[in-house]
Amino acid sequence: MAKAKTAISPTRAEDYPEWYQQVIKAADMAENSPVRGCMVIKPWGYTLWENIQHVLDQMFKDTGHVNAYFPLFIPKSYLEKEAAHVEGFAKECAVVTHSRLVDDGNGGLKPDSPLEEPLIVRPTSETIIGEMYAKWVQSYRDLPILINQWANVVRWEMRTRLFLRTAEFLWQEGHTVHATAEEAMEETRKMLAVYADFAENYMAMPVICGEKTPGERFPGADHTFSIEAMMQDRKALQAGTSHFLGQNFSKASGIKFQSEAGNEEFAWTTSWGVSTRLIGGLIMTHADDDGLVLPPRLAPSHVVILPVMHKPETAAAVLEYCESLKKELQAQCFAGRRVEVEIDKRDMRGGEKRWSWVKKGVPLIVEAGPRDIENNAVFVARRDTGEKVGLPRAEFVATVAERLQGIQDDMLARAQAHRAENTQTIDTLEDFKAYFTPQNAERPEIHGGFAIAHWGGDAEDEDRLAKEMKVTIRNIPLEGQFGYDGEPGTCIYTGKPSTQRVIFAKSY
Amino acid sequence: MAKAKTAISPTRAEDYPEWYQQVIKAADMAENSPVRGCMVIKPWGYTLWENIQHVLDQMFKDTGHVNAYFPLFIPKSYLEKEAAHVEGFAKECAVVTHSRLVDDGNGGLKPDSPLEEPLIVRPTSETIIGEMYAKWVQSYRDLPILINQWANVVRWEMRTRLFLRTAEFLWQEGHTVHATAEEAMEETRKMLAVYADFAENYMAMPVICGEKTPGERFPGADHTFSIEAMMQDRKALQAGTSHFLGQNFSKASGIKFQSEAGNEEFAWTTSWGVSTRLIGGLIMTHADDDGLVLPPRLAPSHVVILPVMHKPETAAAVLEYCESLKKELQAQCFAGRRVEVEIDKRDMRGGEKRWSWVKKGVPLIVEAGPRDIENNAVFVARRDTGEKVGLPRAEFVATVAERLQGIQDDMLARAQAHRAENTQTIDTLEDFKAYFTPQNAERPEIHGGFAIAHWGGDAEDEDRLAKEMKVTIRNIPLEGQFGYDGEPGTCIYTGKPSTQRVIFAKSY
Repeated sequence: MAKAKTAISPTRAEDYPEWYQQVIKAADMAENSPVRGCMVIKPWGYTLWENIQHVLDQMFKDTGHVNAYFPLFIPKSYLEKEAAHVEGFAKECAVVTHSRLVDDGNGGLKPDSPLEEPLIVRPTSETIIGEMYAKWVQSYRDLPILINQWANVVRWEMRTRLFLRTAEFLWQEGHTVHATAEEAMEETRKMLAVYADFAENYMAMPVICGEKTPGERFPGADHTFSIEAMMQDRKALQAGTSHFLGQNFSKASGIKFQSEAGNEEFAWTTSWGVSTRLIGGLIMTHADDDGLVLPPRLAPSHVVILPVMHKPETAAAVLEYCESLKKELQAQCFAGRRVEVEIDKRDMRGGEKRWSWVKKGVPLIVEAGPRDIENNAVFVARRDTGEKVGLPRAEFVATVAERLQGIQDDMLARAQAHRAENTQTIDTLEDFKAYFTPQNAERPEIHGGFAIAHWGGDAEDEDRLAKEMKVTIRNIPLEGQFGYDGEPGTCIYTGKPSTQRVIFAKSY
Repeated sequence: MAKAKTAISPTRAEDYPEWYQQVIKAADMAENSPVRGCMVIKPWGYTLWENIQHVLDQMFKDTGHVNAYFPLFIPKSYLEKEAAHVEGFAKECAVVTHSRLVDDGNGGLKPDSPLEEPLIVRPTSETIIGEMYAKWVQSYRDLPILINQWANVVRWEMRTRLFLRTAEFLWQEGHTVHATAEEAMEETRKMLAVYADFAENYMAMPVICGEKTPGERFPGADHTFSIEAMMQDRKALQAGTSHFLGQNFSKASGIKFQSEAGNEEFAWTTSWGVSTRLIGGLIMTHADDDGLVLPPRLAPSHVVILPVMHKPETAAAVLEYCESLKKELQAQCFAGRRVEVEIDKRDMRGGEKRWSWVKKGVPLIVEAGPRDIENNAVFVARRDTGEKVGLPRAEFVATVAERLQGIQDDMLARAQAHRAENTQTIDTLEDFKAYFTPQNAERPEIHGGFAIAHWGGDAEDEDRLAKEMKVTIRNIPLEGQFGYDGEPGTCIYTGKPSTQRVIFAKSY
């Protein structure tokens, strides 16, 4: 049946940015708080973050990392130690200057007891963690240090958007120390691969692993690598980064060790992080005009059962049928977790109830009523495709894990197809400009997508390009990645020689 | 064999406060950071916190709660809304006043871009969460709200001590909203019982559930309940609190709802929390003069295997024996988790290696060498009692879960016995004073312990008692609790009539 109306208004085609906000609202995932730029993550959004944390945390542990916790505050003097780092973070940070509030004489309070040294609420923790590592590392025997932290961080962003860019956000930050540059680079690349594995196999969000250009590096890094995903509006989202910090922070913090040969050397460090921004990426990869669509491997609930209880005389039997179905389903295992099932017993109209779960993106919606009991059957709808099917109950239970994996696979395949359809190899500046120029002035967001083209410019050229066309280099794909082409050529923008093609896109 | 020397110096008997610091250092759990009052929780300490979180989180979910996340910052004006609350928290809080650092002209940075309204780093979140709840709650149908948050909070404490009292600490804070006072009180008591269950059955730390006196209530609460534990120095530790907030915060934040009868009413709220302070309680309940002793149900590793590899010719066979033993042990289940096993292959002296695990408190330390292989045996030491025994390997594997539970039970029993031995029912002020007066001026910490005595004073009397003797009322035990005696009597301090006995102690 063709839908007369979508659950989300406006639709993606009508107004993509507003659609995004409305999907979050309809799924009850998060909302803006009265504190400028800070969001409230509501239970449905937070459970998704818990599931993301759970999977990533296991991946970090499987690669030899342990968790620890470092202070929220960074003394101003620490931030000053690494020049590029200051440059990157001083402009937008929350500064704690007082440790007390006292009566202001007008029935209110005013700050009192100024601190000797202002403290910065961590925007990232390289400097405070480096200070501790300098104490902990004496000898090559103390290396490597492989620590991760789950924490909140604050960056005083001017324009914020739920999940994608908020003043306070939740993230993990890995901080490792190594005896050699080679080992640190290996770690940097390994964690990038962990992020890509997670994005593709759990979020069903294909990503390109590549190196950022020098102008786009993390402040203080020698090399920054990223995973870049294409959203449904064909813009890129940087979804995670992994930094080879060289000896910059070990020199700033004094992380020195006695090598096996007996020399005193500065250590090599890395850092890597993903944040609640991933949730924004997940929404913009999979949600549709009816709301959120959750990849089964991260869904808080896999199946919601809606008991059809119009008739009082059959209501008890229906509920019993649903409860026993729930038990059978929960005895099944999917992707290392129990199949999570919810029965929605709320007293509300069937249509309204059904739509509430469509908007929340639960992978499988099951309806069961008196007729289903008679036939020992269930009526199952797939959230991602809308496909509906009546099935013998036993068959559904036996195949639920397989069905969930099928949805997961199809979601990834659709996202891959979307990226492939909206990516083009381009060799002339004319084609490049046409590709990124919106066809319709009223819909400036509609443009080509990803361009795979040669680049030989420097940071200034990149800035000019960004100003001129709002297009940036997302990354330089690593060998074997989507869009990788290691053949030399000519820079599309500057005409200089280029050693390989890079990914260009508009971005979040 | 009598130990010539203990691993921790000083011992508990020599200097209890310093012993506590040294246990933490020897187990490598945490250390002070260069940021005033903020600690770094190192991996061994953090994993313990993760295990605490994991168990409590499941308990919260089993009682119908969900997690969410609210902003780190609280606008100054929100804190001003509840009078008692301001009084309690304004005196020691981190105040954010600027959003930027700029060049100070001397090669350093200075705060810039003052905020219109200062922000407080949350010391607790009643006011900011209340603000959101006021939006979310319209009708009785929206109630109850049962939300928990895992977060960091900051209180600018003057004197800090690792885990027990730090400027920043990690905790969970439950915040619930109800339609009736009865339901809110039921929630308050239910969560107190959850904390007691956790303390006794996971931490092996017996606690007394009771109500705080009016002077000791949470700022803004109508009733505050606590769990109180006795440490090895006989002082009390308040290990968790649950607050019935009445309508105080719903009036301050405007949490109103339309009742089933159609009237507009203020809601009833509760809040409840435990923090990383629990780790301090765990240490002071169980650690001994050789270091940490972990209750098996929370231990990061249950068993550590030390391969005896003096002889190069048998080293490979020993390692193989240990690896296969590890696999067999990990196939066992204890308290809902896999039995966690570590093999310590580090190249260091056997004694030093063994002591490192004793100091970390792992419940079972297994040594296996060439002779054990011959006999298909293992040599097992219990950390808590020091008891050592040679066992057939298969027997050890088959009984490991039972042995761990045995340790858990014995630890709780010992802590209960310690509390029983150091608690006294007292009826005269003379006995009371003698009980709390140290026998030895050089060891002011040595005193009686808990006193169960009648109290009929007010908040001022309590203050006087605290100043005079450093003794406070820990709580008024609930019916059925250790120390409960609901018979009326005469106040030991004021001579006024008393309705029941309360728990007096010196405390952390």
